[in-house]
Amino acid sequence: MSGITTFGERRLVLISGRAHPELAERVAEELGVDLVPTTAYDFASGEIYVRFQESVRGADAFALQSMTAPINQWIMEQLLMVDALKRASVKTITAVMPFFPYARQDKKHRGREPISARLMADLYKTAGADRLMSVDLHAAQAQGFFDGPVDHLFAMPTLVDYVRTRVDTANVTVVSPDAGRIRVAEQWAAKLGGNPLAFVHKTRDITRPNSAVANRVIGEVAGRDCVLVDDLIDTGGTIAEAVRVLRENDARSVMIVATHGVLSDPAPRRLAECGASEVVITDTLPIPRDKRFPGLTVLSIAPLLARAIREVFDEGSVTSLFDGNA
Amino acid sequence: MSGITTFGERRLVLISGRAHPELAERVAEELGVDLVPTTAYDFASGEIYVRFQESVRGADAFALQSMTAPINQWIMEQLLMVDALKRASVKTITAVMPFFPYARQDKKHRGREPISARLMADLYKTAGADRLMSVDLHAAQAQGFFDGPVDHLFAMPTLVDYVRTRVDTANVTVVSPDAGRIRVAEQWAAKLGGNPLAFVHKTRDITRPNSAVANRVIGEVAGRDCVLVDDLIDTGGTIAEAVRVLRENDARSVMIVATHGVLSDPAPRRLAECGASEVVITDTLPIPRDKRFPGLTVLSIAPLLARAIREVFDEGSVTSLFDGNA
Amino acid sequence: MSGITTFGERRLVLISGRAHPELAERVAEELGVDLVPTTAYDFASGEIYVRFQESVRGADAFALQSMTAPINQWIMEQLLMVDALKRASVKTITAVMPFFPYARQDKKHRGREPISARLMADLYKTAGADRLMSVDLHAAQAQGFFDGPVDHLFAMPTLVDYVRTRVDTANVTVVSPDAGRIRVAEQWAAKLGGNPLAFVHKTRDITRPNSAVANRVIGEVAGRDCVLVDDLIDTGGTIAEAVRVLRENDARSVMIVATHGVLSDPAPRRLAECGASEVVITDTLPIPRDKRFPGLTVLSIAPLLARAIREVFDEGSVTSLFDGNA
Amino acid sequence: MSGITTFGERRLVLISGRAHPELAERVAEELGVDLVPTTAYDFASGEIYVRFQESVRGADAFALQSMTAPINQWIMEQLLMVDALKRASVKTITAVMPFFPYARQDKKHRGREPISARLMADLYKTAGADRLMSVDLHAAQAQGFFDGPVDHLFAMPTLVDYVRTRVDTANVTVVSPDAGRIRVAEQWAAKLGGNPLAFVHKTRDITRPNSAVANRVIGEVAGRDCVLVDDLIDTGGTIAEAVRVLRENDARSVMIVATHGVLSDPAPRRLAECGASEVVITDTLPIPRDKRFPGLTVLSIAPLLARAIREVFDEGSVTSLFDGNA
Amino acid sequence: MSGITTFGERRLVLISGRAHPELAERVAEELGVDLVPTTAYDFASGEIYVRFQESVRGADAFALQSMTAPINQWIMEQLLMVDALKRASVKTITAVMPFFPYARQDKKHRGREPISARLMADLYKTAGADRLMSVDLHAAQAQGFFDGPVDHLFAMPTLVDYVRTRVDTANVTVVSPDAGRIRVAEQWAAKLGGNPLAFVHKTRDITRPNSAVANRVIGEVAGRDCVLVDDLIDTGGTIAEAVRVLRENDARSVMIVATHGVLSDPAPRRLAECGASEVVITDTLPIPRDKRFPGLTVLSIAPLLARAIREVFDEGSVTSLFDGNA
Amino acid sequence: MSGITTFGERRLVLISGRAHPELAERVAEELGVDLVPTTAYDFASGEIYVRFQESVRGADAFALQSMTAPINQWIMEQLLMVDALKRASVKTITAVMPFFPYARQDKKHRGREPISARLMADLYKTAGADRLMSVDLHAAQAQGFFDGPVDHLFAMPTLVDYVRTRVDTANVTVVSPDAGRIRVAEQWAAKLGGNPLAFVHKTRDITRPNSAVANRVIGEVAGRDCVLVDDLIDTGGTIAEAVRVLRENDARSVMIVATHGVLSDPAPRRLAECGASEVVITDTLPIPRDKRFPGLTVLSIAPLLARAIREVFDEGSVTSLFDGNA
Repeated sequence: MSGITTFGERRLVLISGRAHPELAERVAEELGVDLVPTTAYDFASGEIYVRFQESVRGADAFALQSMTAPINQWIMEQLLMVDALKRASVKTITAVMPFFPYARQDKKHRGREPISARLMADLYKTAGADRLMSVDLHAAQAQGFFDGPVDHLFAMPTLVDYVRTRVDTANVTVVSPDAGRIRVAEQWAAKLGGNPLAFVHKTRDITRPNSAVANRVIGEVAGRDCVLVDDLIDTGGTIAEAVRVLRENDARSVMIVATHGVLSDPAPRRLAECGASEVVITDTLPIPRDKRFPGLTVLSIAPLLARAIREVFDEGSVTSLFDGNA
Repeated sequence: MSGITTFGERRLVLISGRAHPELAERVAEELGVDLVPTTAYDFASGEIYVRFQESVRGADAFALQSMTAPINQWIMEQLLMVDALKRASVKTITAVMPFFPYARQDKKHRGREPISARLMADLYKTAGADRLMSVDLHAAQAQGFFDGPVDHLFAMPTLVDYVRTRVDTANVTVVSPDAGRIRVAEQWAAKLGGNPLAFVHKTRDITRPNSAVANRVIGEVAGRDCVLVDDLIDTGGTIAEAVRVLRENDARSVMIVATHGVLSDPAPRRLAECGASEVVITDTLPIPRDKRFPGLTVLSIAPLLARAIREVFDEGSVTSLFDGNA
Repeated sequence: MSGITTFGERRLVLISGRAHPELAERVAEELGVDLVPTTAYDFASGEIYVRFQESVRGADAFALQSMTAPINQWIMEQLLMVDALKRASVKTITAVMPFFPYARQDKKHRGREPISARLMADLYKTAGADRLMSVDLHAAQAQGFFDGPVDHLFAMPTLVDYVRTRVDTANVTVVSPDAGRIRVAEQWAAKLGGNPLAFVHKTRDITRPNSAVANRVIGEVAGRDCVLVDDLIDTGGTIAEAVRVLRENDARSVMIVATHGVLSDPAPRRLAECGASEVVITDTLPIPRDKRFPGLTVLSIAPLLARAIREVFDEGSVTSLFDGNA
Repeated sequence: MSGITTFGERRLVLISGRAHPELAERVAEELGVDLVPTTAYDFASGEIYVRFQESVRGADAFALQSMTAPINQWIMEQLLMVDALKRASVKTITAVMPFFPYARQDKKHRGREPISARLMADLYKTAGADRLMSVDLHAAQAQGFFDGPVDHLFAMPTLVDYVRTRVDTANVTVVSPDAGRIRVAEQWAAKLGGNPLAFVHKTRDITRPNSAVANRVIGEVAGRDCVLVDDLIDTGGTIAEAVRVLRENDARSVMIVATHGVLSDPAPRRLAECGASEVVITDTLPIPRDKRFPGLTVLSIAPLLARAIREVFDEGSVTSLFDGNA
Repeated sequence: MSGITTFGERRLVLISGRAHPELAERVAEELGVDLVPTTAYDFASGEIYVRFQESVRGADAFALQSMTAPINQWIMEQLLMVDALKRASVKTITAVMPFFPYARQDKKHRGREPISARLMADLYKTAGADRLMSVDLHAAQAQGFFDGPVDHLFAMPTLVDYVRTRVDTANVTVVSPDAGRIRVAEQWAAKLGGNPLAFVHKTRDITRPNSAVANRVIGEVAGRDCVLVDDLIDTGGTIAEAVRVLRENDARSVMIVATHGVLSDPAPRRLAECGASEVVITDTLPIPRDKRFPGLTVLSIAPLLARAIREVFDEGSVTSLFDGNA
Repeated sequence: MSGITTFGERRLVLISGRAHPELAERVAEELGVDLVPTTAYDFASGEIYVRFQESVRGADAFALQSMTAPINQWIMEQLLMVDALKRASVKTITAVMPFFPYARQDKKHRGREPISARLMADLYKTAGADRLMSVDLHAAQAQGFFDGPVDHLFAMPTLVDYVRTRVDTANVTVVSPDAGRIRVAEQWAAKLGGNPLAFVHKTRDITRPNSAVANRVIGEVAGRDCVLVDDLIDTGGTIAEAVRVLRENDARSVMIVATHGVLSDPAPRRLAECGASEVVITDTLPIPRDKRFPGLTVLSIAPLLARAIREVFDEGSVTSLFDGNA
């Protein structure tokens, strides 16, 4: 037979955007690799330049970006990185985005809106991504927005392990801050051991006609240690209000747990002052010093990302990291 | 300038699969059109043959199919109809599927599952559909599965209007049969006038170790007229159990309302015997005689479909049918 | 250079739908592998659920389905399996369909029909199949419907070997049951050793004006042992009629040979009673007990499928299995 | 409502490549239009330049090319014309190719061949064609190679009308020059009135071991007026040999009829000398003076193309031109 | 025939992003339309929300955005607007971007870079744009990056008309600031009347080994009125240096002309102080007060955009606006 | 785990079209491989047939074609080869085209032209090419026309090495034959050591009103050894005229250097007689005997192609061959 024959080799490379270099460094450390040296800067016009300083031809590339503000800047940087990887002849490209951008605009709430999360999935496909990896999607349906495999990781095991060290789970009621997220609260309740559930129902107060909104707690919380769970905390308004209502309803304590700490202004102040005993998040997004406050605990998502990346590269099982649920 | 110039004309044609001809006839009647005469039958091998008996070249075609059992048969028939329309040079193709097939498999619940609802959207795109039209998607995110416009219609206005004629809304509590559907119940509560909410929480009963599951009502239902809302009723197990629990918790009455009546065995018997005062559904799926029972009310979705089709054809606004929410 | 480097491995996995598990088992046995444990069942609504019970990440997956009735059900199941494989990060997906579905609707016979076979090819591409493998396509042109490699296998060597053991080839005339399949008969004639050809011509009988159709044999068959060849037998009407006409024209014997035994009602009765000396088919489709009859011989296609799958996996040559014709 | 509203207009434009300008002129005349003035020439390097000299924005464009030698040159010219139309903002593009290029390579006859006809269909799609229009495809399955509508026209009505004026149809036997084209002969036989069929079987002559090939006539031809039909005549070898064999078998006369006159060397000489009474073709391909010979009749396909183009533009029915068969 | 038939209507709608509302207003005024009322704002997280406040179904939509800093923000906003238009069932979408984003990264200058301009074209295609409209692309080849029509407009006629009013063209030498842009200067020279050319050659000064770079003028400039032309001015470094060198070479005067005024810091100061007699640009990008300086002239591009949009909508000729060059 | 596991192997195969077999042989020799035995010929109709004579399943295939006249013939042959490779189940396909076809039509010079170079890139993508490899693109932007990696090789190092052996670089002025190619001349000047630049400006001669065109040299050339550089020489008119003007302006000598020798008639005569001291090109295109003339030097591009192919196969770095510029 004509030609040259060699043994195949496979090479994993890890690449980081500029949004959250600490997270990328931690993942690299867990994996035992160096990040691919990368040039990335902004031109005066705001346009981004990226270039990899060593050959990545034939590699399985994992390009990590954290979707913090200015989020459109970081999305575009990651898309440019993916395009550069494609044109640099890598074998496969996994775009790692611990927090999926525009995840909340996952449907048309009203006519003539975009479905931004689907658009994001398509933009990454177009740029050349073969696979996405993300943590705790706002709605799991967003997996279906991407035409290809999505490794959907769950922070819950990490978070639950920590919570168990902080509260007496026998007295816990799991609470959802609104009607749309009770399914997540239910999963927490099952994981903790069949605990009771409650949620906050936002409604017009029909007893006081001119007043706008009242929040009622549905479910029993008096005397309970409430664990208020959500996927993300943005400005913190809903969640701080939920703490207030729980305390009015005689909750013994309230602990806030969420995966993604967007923490837009004025979230840090609101959370610090809302009366919660502790606020627990992960570092899927960078938490700079000016967003930190007493009572805030930040767990690292890096070990989880590193294990998942390694399973993908080794053609093992990401599902096995979550007892089949991935 | 070279060439021949004429004025443009536009033509709406309505086509029906074999799954639910009564619904198509009703829509045609509302629109004031005849259905396009269509040949459709099964070969002995089970393969389907379809052909349109008159030219549809240049038309805006609406192909309606109802996703009842045997559902894979009817999906394939509609795909073949769409392919035939594409190759017959129609201008645009809208696949009308009042009940979206495989809507419940809209994410990977566990590893190594398909995302069947996304696959369906892609199959229709591949066959040649330009637009989908559907009623009350299981998760609104499924809109984002299709690469093109989706006209998402809501049966709630139709259902709410009917419910108002049957209960005293001042005494109503809206109930969700499980944690995942409370968002819909919340919309009902808002529409009815800020009514209270409740839901059924399925959990392991920790007080009785060897027993498997207990259902608790979260929220106040004693003495209330409960309206139990869901998007669809399949085998009826969850909803009948919800009625039972509500009655155990001293609800004054329970009315069941859902858009899609899948009514797989043994749903008719369960619903007839569960103690609900009335079961209200629409005819997005055919309800043959042997699935009907006393206490079942079937409202027709045909007027809504016809109005939406007309708005699409007239380049008007489907959103306007729902006060901006579509 | 940054990153982690390992040697590449390749893994073949074989997966079976529910349509014809015996065939899949036989192929697995020939290959010396176990089938991937798979969960597959129908919901009450008729929607199908599938899931693989072990990781298939990085594998070369061969998903086998047999296109028997209810054929749309089995097509959809295979599409769902392919989608699940794609999202489970396999490396390549080969959809093995020994009998290609809708193969006979491979063109528009009249205006406003679908081209169903092309649609099938596109649906598999959309779901994620990289390659198709099939046996004896109704028209070889269907290879060109798929945008990618198609491994087109031929049962003729298997069938010819058997036929040689049953008839004196010196006295054989190869007969096509209609004008459209003579090309296949010609290949048989060449393979057997330059044997004579004949075919049955269906025509209006112009000597009897009010009668509809007459079948004439074109070619010499008196005193000959006729081997009547076709790609598939569906209801058996054409082929049984061909036997009748051949016998009227004094054929010494008639043997029927076909690759695919669809055998829709009333094929078993017709074939049993038509006067053929033997009916030879393969098991590309399941032949349940109630379709079997004396004089029916079923050869297994499993060794051929297994060898082809092995050649694909080993990056050998499928063409070499057929002396260059594949 | 915001914006500017006008009535829609539609404009048909006809464009011609350089391969067969006479045909395009005839079609334009039938339609009553002028061809769009077009610049097209070859650079010294062999690269082609094309440009339209007037605006075609918004038009329904029909770009006609005839696939004569040098065929790759004319394919590329038509692809460039389609690309230019797409970028010039036409509304729809129909590539009219009366003879479909590479139609005979519509499957892999052996391993490691291209499927050239599918490739052609894809190239036109990629360049921007929305629809193809062609006459008498070598295999009708090629319709399915294009992802969009194909208007498949039939020359048979035109040819049959002419043949009726030349022979006594009561004494006609329709003959296929080889086993692969009998289906077409069968359609001719039905159209003429249920006439008998025959075909030429090419085989190794087993009575003379060292000789290579013998051609036998299957069917009765002695004393008959044979109409030998095919879709195209290329070098004329097969068809001239068929005439010879038919005459050896005492046919009274032989008339050759085919749609496409490729007439590669030495076809004109062979046909002139083979003993056929007349050779009838159409002008789907140019028949220059040096290919013409006594006994050759060339019918124009232009009226058929013009009618089909007009039906497409008027959104009428092309199918109706052929009694439903298109 | 079945169905409903109406006359077709066409509707033009103009939509503006938030980057440069003044330009959109001017274009709307020229066209005589109102902008479609649009909601657009940033969430605290930086994610953008957009929604159109009235139906655009069936319209030909032109969505205008100006690519000023923060440019990634405005690209994403326009992509979201295009996605929303697509899902709102418009008929066609033209993305109007007077300055094409990332136009300068139109090739890999070195290995492992992205081709950002191609990526942009693909992102717009993916979001749903049917056509792009832009002014003075950095390299005209970028037209070929988009898979569809690109209306490429030229500001040169507008700029030349103005320059004629300011200088004695008989004494003008057209100068390119570097070797890469001489082709544009040549077009200016031809348009002005066959004027002489010159350019600045940046090189290592081989007479002074340790010094880095010297700029030489190639061509005659002494005593001439130089018109220094470029497509865009970013930080102004190259162009200010060119003015300096021209003056050192005894140019009588230097006028700077460019289409796109990016004017990143410290361009305004550099241009104000460089010794040019006048700096002429257009308003393809907003020129806020703090970027303006004495000697700066800003011509409006709005009339040109409006005429081109109207030609597109009227299916007239954009090419005719530029004597065939578009 | 189920299945069969083996080690992966990789195989390089090299395939040649018929346009320039000598070049392919030289590349094969440099690589130390045999070309894959390939059948390729023209049918009488002009249609091309290709087939590979041994299995290429699973290989990394490099298919080389040289784009000489008849260029459309050779493009089509390479497309057919790529299609055949795709359907023969190779792993990756690199289309090697040392001279990119239609490279000069890389934009619309005027309205209603094609962008032929983009079309070519798309045709190769459609046929199945994963990567393109080419030498000295007319405009580097053409890289961005292909949706995938393009390995863009530079002949300049090869050419510069040779030129250094032929002229005293200290006295060299690098000259561009027209304004559009000065950027390349500038790169040559930098590579040679900061040499001076000049170019020829084609203009209407305003001193002689009725005369059409005059060519002026911009830059100093008197007494200099001019190296006139271009990417390709087609008919040689521009470059021969440039030599004439340089000599009129007292250049001491003129040497012509270009990568691609299209050498269409009457280039050989013009170049032989124009007064240049030497004409240096490479063999990216075949230079048959009748195009050769005294003073013509042809350097082989084969070593460069072989090294690049080897880097691609070994997943090394093509960029490294050019100090980062690729």
